[in-house]
Amino acid sequence: MEQFLGPDFLLTTPTARTLYHEHAAALPIIDYHCHLDPAIIDRDENFGSITQLWLAGDHYKWRAERANGVAERFITGDATDWEKFEQWAATVPYTLRNPLYHWTHMELRTAFGIDETLNPESARRIFEECNEQLRRPDMTPRGLMRRYGVETVCTTDDPADSLEHHLNIRRSGFEIKVLPTWRPDKAMAVETPVAFGEYIRRLGHAAGRDIRTFADLRDALQIRHDFFESAGCRLSDHGLDKFYAEDFDAADIDRIFRRTLDGHKPSEHEIRQFKSAMLVLFGEMDHASDWAQQFHYGTIRNSNSRMMRAVGPDTGFDSIGEFATATECARYLDRLDSEGKLPRTILYNLNPSANEMIATMIGNFQDGSVPGKMQFGSGWWFNDQADGMRRQMNALSLLGLLSRFVGMLTDSRSFLSYPRHEYFRRTLCDLVGADVEAGLIPYAGYERERVNAMIRDICYNNAREYFKF
Amino acid sequence: MEQFLGPDFLLTTPTARTLYHEHAAALPIIDYHCHLDPAIIDRDENFGSITQLWLAGDHYKWRAERANGVAERFITGDATDWEKFEQWAATVPYTLRNPLYHWTHMELRTAFGIDETLNPESARRIFEECNEQLRRPDMTPRGLMRRYGVETVCTTDDPADSLEHHLNIRRSGFEIKVLPTWRPDKAMAVETPVAFGEYIRRLGHAAGRDIRTFADLRDALQIRHDFFESAGCRLSDHGLDKFYAEDFDAADIDRIFRRTLDGHKPSEHEIRQFKSAMLVLFGEMDHASDWAQQFHYGTIRNSNSRMMRAVGPDTGFDSIGEFATATECARYLDRLDSEGKLPRTILYNLNPSANEMIATMIGNFQDGSVPGKMQFGSGWWFNDQADGMRRQMNALSLLGLLSRFVGMLTDSRSFLSYPRHEYFRRTLCDLVGADVEAGLIPYAGYERERVNAMIRDICYNNAREYFKF
Amino acid sequence: MEQFLGPDFLLTTPTARTLYHEHAAALPIIDYHCHLDPAIIDRDENFGSITQLWLAGDHYKWRAERANGVAERFITGDATDWEKFEQWAATVPYTLRNPLYHWTHMELRTAFGIDETLNPESARRIFEECNEQLRRPDMTPRGLMRRYGVETVCTTDDPADSLEHHLNIRRSGFEIKVLPTWRPDKAMAVETPVAFGEYIRRLGHAAGRDIRTFADLRDALQIRHDFFESAGCRLSDHGLDKFYAEDFDAADIDRIFRRTLDGHKPSEHEIRQFKSAMLVLFGEMDHASDWAQQFHYGTIRNSNSRMMRAVGPDTGFDSIGEFATATECARYLDRLDSEGKLPRTILYNLNPSANEMIATMIGNFQDGSVPGKMQFGSGWWFNDQADGMRRQMNALSLLGLLSRFVGMLTDSRSFLSYPRHEYFRRTLCDLVGADVEAGLIPYAGYERERVNAMIRDICYNNAREYFKF
Repeated sequence: MEQFLGPDFLLTTPTARTLYHEHAAALPIIDYHCHLDPAIIDRDENFGSITQLWLAGDHYKWRAERANGVAERFITGDATDWEKFEQWAATVPYTLRNPLYHWTHMELRTAFGIDETLNPESARRIFEECNEQLRRPDMTPRGLMRRYGVETVCTTDDPADSLEHHLNIRRSGFEIKVLPTWRPDKAMAVETPVAFGEYIRRLGHAAGRDIRTFADLRDALQIRHDFFESAGCRLSDHGLDKFYAEDFDAADIDRIFRRTLDGHKPSEHEIRQFKSAMLVLFGEMDHASDWAQQFHYGTIRNSNSRMMRAVGPDTGFDSIGEFATATECARYLDRLDSEGKLPRTILYNLNPSANEMIATMIGNFQDGSVPGKMQFGSGWWFNDQADGMRRQMNALSLLGLLSRFVGMLTDSRSFLSYPRHEYFRRTLCDLVGADVEAGLIPYAGYERERVNAMIRDICYNNAREYFKF
Repeated sequence: MEQFLGPDFLLTTPTARTLYHEHAAALPIIDYHCHLDPAIIDRDENFGSITQLWLAGDHYKWRAERANGVAERFITGDATDWEKFEQWAATVPYTLRNPLYHWTHMELRTAFGIDETLNPESARRIFEECNEQLRRPDMTPRGLMRRYGVETVCTTDDPADSLEHHLNIRRSGFEIKVLPTWRPDKAMAVETPVAFGEYIRRLGHAAGRDIRTFADLRDALQIRHDFFESAGCRLSDHGLDKFYAEDFDAADIDRIFRRTLDGHKPSEHEIRQFKSAMLVLFGEMDHASDWAQQFHYGTIRNSNSRMMRAVGPDTGFDSIGEFATATECARYLDRLDSEGKLPRTILYNLNPSANEMIATMIGNFQDGSVPGKMQFGSGWWFNDQADGMRRQMNALSLLGLLSRFVGMLTDSRSFLSYPRHEYFRRTLCDLVGADVEAGLIPYAGYERERVNAMIRDICYNNAREYFKF
Repeated sequence: MEQFLGPDFLLTTPTARTLYHEHAAALPIIDYHCHLDPAIIDRDENFGSITQLWLAGDHYKWRAERANGVAERFITGDATDWEKFEQWAATVPYTLRNPLYHWTHMELRTAFGIDETLNPESARRIFEECNEQLRRPDMTPRGLMRRYGVETVCTTDDPADSLEHHLNIRRSGFEIKVLPTWRPDKAMAVETPVAFGEYIRRLGHAAGRDIRTFADLRDALQIRHDFFESAGCRLSDHGLDKFYAEDFDAADIDRIFRRTLDGHKPSEHEIRQFKSAMLVLFGEMDHASDWAQQFHYGTIRNSNSRMMRAVGPDTGFDSIGEFATATECARYLDRLDSEGKLPRTILYNLNPSANEMIATMIGNFQDGSVPGKMQFGSGWWFNDQADGMRRQMNALSLLGLLSRFVGMLTDSRSFLSYPRHEYFRRTLCDLVGADVEAGLIPYAGYERERVNAMIRDICYNNAREYFKF
């Protein structure tokens, strides 16, 4: 019986262990997509308690607690920090086989040096030990990022955002790069005209110009895109239910835009047209700036309207959708490619039953200009666990080139999520190591070096070369 | 080489063996969803032959025989019991790797003590040995249920059903609970107006009232719902191709109902509206009675019209559909949740490519009121085998809480299907045991007890607490 | 650590090794579906170079090179044979975990006796060694087919094709059967009226009659179908995005056909109607001739319009689609079955998330007339690798009868693809062997012979009996 979370956790063969310990473990972390709040990094204050750090915004944990019968008061309500922690500690033993169980204990171990398992018996001890440690001067947001060997972090930011915190962080001389990511979802959300109108005014304000026509919108976005570029932005991100690739012409789009600004809800067809136009525009802008673009698609969001009213979005009421979007995805990518304006692109699907579709789709637009131009993104959200990672890497391996994969990102809101890179690296080394042991991959001479290099590339070098931070 | 179907069948690690033999094997069976005929339990007569018991209604076996080139006369036709058995025995060796091969031999072993494999050479011997044993007084329906340690069984019943056999069984003092399940599919089948009209008359008759309006229908259903409750019913079941969540108002539904009763087929949109309304009504009724509701969705039924005419429904001509229904499912559940009337709910999907969708969907409506309120049902129908069970449990583990799973049911028409609970328990213990051995789950101190308890919970306790029979 | 590509490659248990080496390895190859060019077999000339043989038409390799950053000039452009080979050799080490890595080295080993791995260091040596060997008189197309133990090959041919090369090959006394396959896709492509009109004229010319009405088309196709039959054709093949099963009547179809011939593009509904009619017609014709029919569905083709213009179709810009087609598939098969005219049928899906749907769909139309009448085709195209084969065989095993499977085909354009049969046989033996070792399959007495026979059946006998070449 292997030791729980021992040094060879997830590494089931000798070769896997060699690959991980000798080639993967020590590499710096490039976390090219996350949801950290730059204001928190800017202020760099100590956390009030482990509850604040761990439970204040983690909807994965909240979902597990609700499924375990924990009342909302102890999750998002007014219970004390201890009460909330106690409920979480009581839930943890019921999360066996869920990645939360591993993440929880990897985080306790790597951040606090705590080897004990979290359960009702250990809860009070661990709560106090963590809180004690969190008062140390090296246990701030920046301290944690240093502790985990982070080199670069890309947050997720709205075009109307001032990026003041990114600029402050840069000016502060912080040695870790904290870069913005362009996430213009709100600029295409014409399905909710009132919120859209407010957003456009906010965007106009940020860009210093009045937005009345679609041409104005385009100009304002370009001004902000240039500003993001100046702040070190190297990639965009888009959250979609599915892809859009309707036919449209400029006059359609301008008309839809103006009428929406006037408060009229566009028809379903017009909504699709407008989104189609915006996706093309976004791609063209990224291509002109040599940015990479990311698409996260396939979500059903905010499906619980009672809880949406009570606690708002991003609180654990989203799930995997069933969208047949391959045809639109191909048509969208083809439009940009036909114009010679397809940027480096990463596709993340939420429904793993689309893994094989995506892994083959990217092959249609690899153009030989740069290795791995089109990427199948690492297991996303619900798929961000050993099984999901394995499925994504197996599909990519079998249907594309694993060697050119840009690897892991946390997609997290937490400063304790960096062990997920360790989780990923162990999983990767285990996959490759098992193949070596089984005689499926040669591991001698030239190929030995290639296999070792492949591990280092996927864990670090590929991302560095792909994003050019 | 492990012994075929040996004591450690499906248990590939020492921990798996400990978990199964010490914690799972001896627990009673709660079979909370099946299709046993209560009349047969009521009469409790000996079976005429192993052919009658095994082959008279088992469409799994029939499908295998047709695929093996067996003529219909030997399946559903007028061949003798021996001829039919002989054809099945000739087919069995061709079912290697199909669950039928395991079920067949587990059933021979556990019911008859026969260790021999079934094939053309052993067919006659086994036929005679089984028939001999089936004449014993303990080999009746009730005897078999006792033999397998069954505690509770829930059959599947129409609201218009008199439940006379359930009442007889209860009155007979049979120590095993045989409870009805509310399955009102026919009350929403407006797509076939003639059959619908006949059904509504039958329902009205059962409820003792004339049904002319939708309000009448509602009242009649409530009367029958109350009657089912009085007969021990604790859950409902619904067979759907997909979910329905159209907008509707009471006037629409009443109009659609009346016109359908008059023999007019509703439009596609009206059909969806009516089904949407009925699903909400069913949920409300179950919530008021504190029942659990089950949804079995994703089937293409009766796809072979020639055989439908020849041998009727449920004879082996159904298969897995491809329905994108996540959005409607979310909307349906949200409607009930918004009203504060969402019952405990179990979702069963037939297409395993929806496993991850379902496993995340239930998380949107876990409300902390009771552990595991929303359940992802065990591998259903075609997925009711080791691989399908594993995939369901892995998805549930990774995306929800396996610990809170209510576990296995047979969904069977046969009194010999209880070994499927053994199959499930072995598969569960193997999954958990393998994780323990690999260092993915701690198995010492507090966690050792938790793991052991988790096994017992999933095999027995969770269902007992969830359904409150 | 197992040796890379050693004698027990992919065979992880002793039983797997026994099954493969004693029962599978030596059997002849029936390659019942491929895209070999019969003209090349007819001429039987030596290949100009390994580049000509390996890289001139292999879009799998081209996709890998583009993903690896190789410029198009070295793929489909005017670079020299050596330059192209050099780029491929530089790409190979980046294909680790992709089936190309195994195929490449299996082909070098089995065709040329080269054990060295291909990489930039070995590239020149291997290039020259292969080219040297390719000048030998036994290294022609026919020589390679003999070398691999091929017994029968079925090419893919248009109804308008003269089949002159097939007839020449037969007349030449070549001992390996090279048979045509009826692939009438163009006869239903009314969505492109101009190309359709040209094709119909070509077909009319081949059939020796003027085609003006749908009745003419039917007659012309029957004439060609009879001619294919006379040339040894025993099966058809159809490439579809999805299935079609609209209602139609003869007058509709005739009208749509005539108007399309006049250059009018039919409506979407008419296109579906016409395709529905043609699929039924094709099935009826095949049934009358006792042919098997094959359906390859689920592809998005030619999704890169820039490269379509530059290098044409079948050059690596196709991918897996997301089509919900189960309902139409069932309706189509039911139509033919209802008429008593459903031929033996093989369904190949491109999206592996449909594996379970397909594996159950075929069960609906097994009619006992012949074992395995309805077949779930072997892992196709992107799924034609160890993992894809395993998934297909597992789905078929669990939901149907693996024992009756007609097994492997190359679907290839290359004379070096026969090792894929070895790949398949090893994968099959490994699956079955692992089950035997785990006690899931008995392997003694009657069952030992059955397991051995099952391997031989799937590798050879089933195809021979099913197709009746």
